[in-house]
Amino acid sequence: MDIAIVGMGAIGTYYGVRLALAGNTVHFLAHTEYEAVKAGGLHVKSYLGNFDIDAPLVYNSIEAMPPCDMVCVCTKATTNDTIFGSLTPVVKPGGAILLMQNGFGAEERLARLYPDVRIFAGLCFITSYRVSPGHINHDAYGKISLASLVPDAQGLADLYALFTGAGLEAEVIGDVLPARFRKLVWNIPYNGLTVALDCTTLELASGTAALSSVRTLMTEVVEGAAACGVTIDPSFVDEMMGTTQNMGAYEPSMKIDYNHHRPLEVEAIYRKVIAYTADHGYRMAATSLLADELDIIQARYLSA
Amino acid sequence: MDIAIVGMGAIGTYYGVRLALAGNTVHFLAHTEYEAVKAGGLHVKSYLGNFDIDAPLVYNSIEAMPPCDMVCVCTKATTNDTIFGSLTPVVKPGGAILLMQNGFGAEERLARLYPDVRIFAGLCFITSYRVSPGHINHDAYGKISLASLVPDAQGLADLYALFTGAGLEAEVIGDVLPARFRKLVWNIPYNGLTVALDCTTLELASGTAALSSVRTLMTEVVEGAAACGVTIDPSFVDEMMGTTQNMGAYEPSMKIDYNHHRPLEVEAIYRKVIAYTADHGYRMAATSLLADELDIIQARYLSA
Repeated sequence: MDIAIVGMGAIGTYYGVRLALAGNTVHFLAHTEYEAVKAGGLHVKSYLGNFDIDAPLVYNSIEAMPPCDMVCVCTKATTNDTIFGSLTPVVKPGGAILLMQNGFGAEERLARLYPDVRIFAGLCFITSYRVSPGHINHDAYGKISLASLVPDAQGLADLYALFTGAGLEAEVIGDVLPARFRKLVWNIPYNGLTVALDCTTLELASGTAALSSVRTLMTEVVEGAAACGVTIDPSFVDEMMGTTQNMGAYEPSMKIDYNHHRPLEVEAIYRKVIAYTADHGYRMAATSLLADELDIIQARYLSA
Repeated sequence: MDIAIVGMGAIGTYYGVRLALAGNTVHFLAHTEYEAVKAGGLHVKSYLGNFDIDAPLVYNSIEAMPPCDMVCVCTKATTNDTIFGSLTPVVKPGGAILLMQNGFGAEERLARLYPDVRIFAGLCFITSYRVSPGHINHDAYGKISLASLVPDAQGLADLYALFTGAGLEAEVIGDVLPARFRKLVWNIPYNGLTVALDCTTLELASGTAALSSVRTLMTEVVEGAAACGVTIDPSFVDEMMGTTQNMGAYEPSMKIDYNHHRPLEVEAIYRKVIAYTADHGYRMAATSLLADELDIIQARYLSA
């Protein structure tokens, strides 16, 4: 099976390396990191052991890549305007795109751009980060939750087999909408609050005010989902808060973007779902306030 | 008329000096500033001109003060636990307490403590700040909105005459509840956001995200008020946002407290009204999130 990895951050590198080591032919797209990866290979230092590919199949342009059965889009959602339209050379007709990024509503956009391609979402629950070109650390977790934009039990079963066959933890959720909402229960509080308060998840894991701020936002996601016909059991809020308490001083992806003064995924993680739930009659007031704070914060350094 | 001023920040000093210069006998309570004020007097540098009292009636303990017809409580709400119970020596039975501080729900507390005293609220729309002991600057505005805890048209008319007779702009609102809610329309967004985002009102006066954050919070106050039976016309939101745009780079009182690492009036300005509206079936989600952020922020320096 030919697999393309577009986006070589921690997510793309980790899952790409694991899939390649399991015997799949994985093609990696690198831009600024091309020379370093070509020369030095790909190296994952994981709590599960080390995973290395000394001579990966790496390309410095999408046009140079072969058409693949599956294209994993692992880029930041902030670059979707550039990336989404550029995938034609690497997408085999009848093939699949697996969108492995944070956010909401982007699968529909891919479906409009690639009507002959099956669109899946892969939501990664993983604590990993990029150390240097070709080198990433993987500290904990790693499960990928799989969903399809239109019902596709066989496609999801195949994806599940692909990931579990590579020794990865996977689960099939089914539809994209509930999968996205469930992921947002975690992403909306922790990504935004660690930036707004310039802290790690550790500071949000105890204390009345911190726990209240997280719960307010998580509750809003659960209620927003309900307005859109997606039921999330309220116990999921407690489960996510409990999970996070075990993560220690973790910096979510948005916090790392903030640390490096990169654009934040406010549009993907916040604005899209605020608009979608508003269309369904629910107002995410606290989420909206946090999104505004994030836009104000990033405007300071992006305009500097 | 004997008037006591308890709390010699910008509010207490400004209104006290103006009332004294109009011929009232005004007794000022100072603590750490006693010696400086005794020696140097009180000086207001105002956009309306300068107001000075070289030899004010100043006291260093409440026990030393005479019983007064009216006690203006101008302290920070964060000190209410200490101040509220200490007023007996200075309050004349049948007299009045005028609470001139930010917040919500404190008049009821005073009424329980002083059942024989008429309780009023004086909400000050003023941009002023303390420069040094006895010296304050007054940059703009200055209107005081007057309300009574229980209907008291004569008492309000007397207060109105007192303030306007001293050349001050005043208005009678009537009841405390609508007066407090109206003031919170401004206080809840601007006090908290200038702290959470470490900025002045200028940064909140333009830009999509900034205006949205303010509007979200103001709307929540208006809707919270409505749930409690207080009607505030939605145009008041636009009016307050417009007023603020003319204020330039203003730092609200909470921002100044933050700058000096003092306790923030989170309980008075946020928690009380969140709890009150919740009792009336309305959840102030965005306001609650902001209050949580403020508590997290102040905990960092208060516990340091």
